[in-house]
Amino acid sequence: MISPEKPGRRAFVGTLTKASLLLTVPGINPTEHFRQPAQPVTVGQVMELILKTIPNAPFPKTVDTLKSGNAEQKVTGIVSTMFATMEVIQQAIRLGANFIIVHEPTFYNHADETDWLQKDEVFQKKHALLEKNGIAVWRFHDYWHSHRPDGIRMGVVTALGWENYLDEKNPRLITLPAPMPLKQIIAHAKAKLGIAQMRVVGDPAQLCRRVLLMPGASGGRSHIMALQQDKPDVLLCGEISEWETAEYVRDARQQGQNLSLGILGHIMSEAPGMQWLVPWLQPKLPDLKITYVDSKNPFTYL
Amino acid sequence: MISPEKPGRRAFVGTLTKASLLLTVPGINPTEHFRQPAQPVTVGQVMELILKTIPNAPFPKTVDTLKSGNAEQKVTGIVSTMFATMEVIQQAIRLGANFIIVHEPTFYNHADETDWLQKDEVFQKKHALLEKNGIAVWRFHDYWHSHRPDGIRMGVVTALGWENYLDEKNPRLITLPAPMPLKQIIAHAKAKLGIAQMRVVGDPAQLCRRVLLMPGASGGRSHIMALQQDKPDVLLCGEISEWETAEYVRDARQQGQNLSLGILGHIMSEAPGMQWLVPWLQPKLPDLKITYVDSKNPFTYL
Repeated sequence: MISPEKPGRRAFVGTLTKASLLLTVPGINPTEHFRQPAQPVTVGQVMELILKTIPNAPFPKTVDTLKSGNAEQKVTGIVSTMFATMEVIQQAIRLGANFIIVHEPTFYNHADETDWLQKDEVFQKKHALLEKNGIAVWRFHDYWHSHRPDGIRMGVVTALGWENYLDEKNPRLITLPAPMPLKQIIAHAKAKLGIAQMRVVGDPAQLCRRVLLMPGASGGRSHIMALQQDKPDVLLCGEISEWETAEYVRDARQQGQNLSLGILGHIMSEAPGMQWLVPWLQPKLPDLKITYVDSKNPFTYL
Repeated sequence: MISPEKPGRRAFVGTLTKASLLLTVPGINPTEHFRQPAQPVTVGQVMELILKTIPNAPFPKTVDTLKSGNAEQKVTGIVSTMFATMEVIQQAIRLGANFIIVHEPTFYNHADETDWLQKDEVFQKKHALLEKNGIAVWRFHDYWHSHRPDGIRMGVVTALGWENYLDEKNPRLITLPAPMPLKQIIAHAKAKLGIAQMRVVGDPAQLCRRVLLMPGASGGRSHIMALQQDKPDVLLCGEISEWETAEYVRDARQQGQNLSLGILGHIMSEAPGMQWLVPWLQPKLPDLKITYVDSKNPFTYL
C-alpha cells in the first residue's frame, strides 16, 4: 500500500545526522549533497542541485518547468507527489511547504498549456489557490526518468520487492525466481502498490516468469517494440490506449502466444517513484522538511 | 448486451423485399440505395456508395483507408465490427465474407503504419491471414462520425434507449426526464452496453440529469472544453488519458462541483455504432449479406 510517509519514520529520519544518512541511504553519492548555506535555499537552488545528478541536464526541450511560483522564492518545505491535486496543495499548505515537486501535469495536459483554460473555473480556482499561498510547482518527469537509475522505476521495483530480479542490462525486465500464475503476480502487484482493481488481457492461470515492467504511459509503439524485443510472459504497464497495446496482446493470444497484459493504472504504477524521491533528496537538503503526499487513485470501480 | 446479430433476425431481414426494407428502416433515403448491377459489387463500389452519404466526402486527409485487399475485388459478404481481431477475421472467413468494415485500427496504431511492424510476428501472422483469404479491411471512422447523424452516436444512444432525451442542437448532451443517482446511470449503461466494469470518479449517490455522452477517445482537451461549455452533471466517455479528464474532474469535485465521470471503455462505448451500420447499409445493398460481429471487450477485471 502506498500511503503518506508515516510520522514515525519522518521523526526518526529527522534525528539522524547528515553523515549517518549518507552512509545509510543506498545510491546516495556523498559528493552530491547540497552545502547548506547560511541563507534559506531557493526553489532554483533545489532544482539546480537535483539537475546536477541528471545526465545531460538541463535539457533544451522538456516539460519539466515551473508551473507556478518562481525560482527565486525561498523554500519553506518540499512536498513530493504524483499530482498537485487541490487536496495535495491544501495538504502542502497545512505542512507549511511552499514547493511541490510533481511527476505529472498540474493543468490537465502534458505541456501544462493554460491559454485554453483562462476562462475555466476549475483552472482559475486552482491557479488562485497556488498564487494566494505562494506555492511553487515544478514538474520532475523527464529528468527523474533520465536519472540513472530511473527514479520512478527504482521506486516501483522497490515497492514490488523485485530489486533482486532486475536484469542489469535491461532494467525494464524482471525475471522472477520461479514461474508464477498470472493471477498471483496481479495479486502481488495490487497488494504492494495499493491497487484496487486491474484490467487484464490474459489467462489468470498462465505461468509467467519474465515480467516486462513499464510504469506510466509510454505509448503503444513503445510497449509493442519492447514486447518484440524482450519476449516477456506478461507486460505490466501503467496506462494504455485501448486500440494499441491491448489489441496487440489480444491478437498475439488469439495466435497462440502465451503473452498477457496487466494494466496497473498510470498513477499507481508511478507514485512509488515520487515516494522514493524523499530518501534520495532528503540527505542533500538535511535542513528542509521533505514529505511524500499520496495523491491517491481517483477511481472507484462500479 | 451487445452481441452478434441473432441468426433469426438475419433470416427475417433476408426475406424482405428491397421496397419493404426501404419503408421499414428509419432514416433511410430511398434515393441513396445502390442500383444492384448484373455484375457483383466491388469493395470500391461499396465505399463509393457509402461516401455519397457523408457530407464533404471524400476527405483529403483521413485514416479511413483500405488496410488490406483492394478496391477492385468483388465483395462476397460484409462484416461490420469495431476491430478486425484475429477471431473476427476468422469469423468473417466462416461467414464467407471477404470485406470487413472496422471502426478502429487493424495494426495497433491510429494511422495503421506498418513499416515498424515488418519483422513483428503478430503483425506477420495477421497480415498473412488477411492475404491468404483475400480479405479487404476498410476503416470507417472519420466518415461514420461525420455522417449526420453521427453513426456511432446514433448506435450508442439507441442502445442506451436515450433517443428521446437528445438535445437536437447539441447531440452530445442527454437530458434525462428526471434526476437519477449516478450509480443507477452507471448500472443502466453497463446493462445496455454489455459493460462488465466501469471506472468512475464521483459519488455514486450524486443525482444527475444532464449527461454529456462522448463515446470513443476524443481527448482530454475535447472533454474539458465540452465540460466547460455544457456544464453536465456527469460525463460518460469511452477512454481517457489519466492525467487529463480524470484529474480535471477530481479537481472540480475537490472544489465542490457536482461533476462526475464514468469511463465506459473505448470499445464498449462505440461498438453499438458499428452494429447500427448494418440496418443502415443493408437496404442500400439488399443482395449482399451484411453481418455485425462483436469484437468484444478484451479485458477481465482482477
